[in-house]
Amino acid sequence: MYIEIDFNSDEAIYSQLCDQIIMGIAAARLNDGDPLPSVRQLANDIGINMHTVNKAYTVLRQQGYVKVDRRRGAVISVDPDKAIALEELGESLRVDIARAFCRNISREDVHKLVDRIFDDYASDHSKE
Amino acid sequence: MYIEIDFNSDEAIYSQLCDQIIMGIAAARLNDGDPLPSVRQLANDIGINMHTVNKAYTVLRQQGYVKVDRRRGAVISVDPDKAIALEELGESLRVDIARAFCRNISREDVHKLVDRIFDDYASDHSKE
Repeated sequence: MYIEIDFNSDEAIYSQLCDQIIMGIAAARLNDGDPLPSVRQLANDIGINMHTVNKAYTVLRQQGYVKVDRRRGAVISVDPDKAIALEELGESLRVDIARAFCRNISREDVHKLVDRIFDDYASDHSKE
Repeated sequence: MYIEIDFNSDEAIYSQLCDQIIMGIAAARLNDGDPLPSVRQLANDIGINMHTVNKAYTVLRQQGYVKVDRRRGAVISVDPDKAIALEELGESLRVDIARAFCRNISREDVHKLVDRIFDDYASDHSKE
């Protein structure tokens, strides 16, 4: 599993780890049912604390991207609840669009960006 | 200045404080040239550590929303550099849209959300 952590970033490492795994799912590098590495293994691979990996897995479970299987450990499992996802997305976009709005970025610019990113994920999926 | 901090959130307090100030600018509650409260005053008002307010002001300065005036302290001053802002927005949207994509939220749903949020900020501005 390819994970890229920016140790100079202001964003917490567990949060970067969550983002990377979610982007991995969107890009079809990780699929429903795929096992994630054990906490110990991933912590070793990236060179971070086991608690950090554990926190990321817990947040991913709470947010509905991962479930914990007794035998297989953490497994990708996306909760298809669109209503909650839309609400979360709205909250997150509200901050992003505030930043755009302050800088006079037009809604057309934002729409173009949204389309470009959707196209990227869709083409990753079609490569499978 | 109205600031709402969620002390139960996973998001760092300084980061919530940055978001709130940026959303305040987008909603025209804060405008170019407006002074921000002193670090001590805001820390007291919210009931958080002065270091946390200081970190938020530093990040806002680095990101181009605030400048520090010798006499007046931190003042709203939005850097109009659209290129950097677009790049930052793209990075942030990439994570948000990954979350949407995993949940089968369509690009039309995202466009609708973007429009609704733009409309909200625009109507806040027209109220001025």
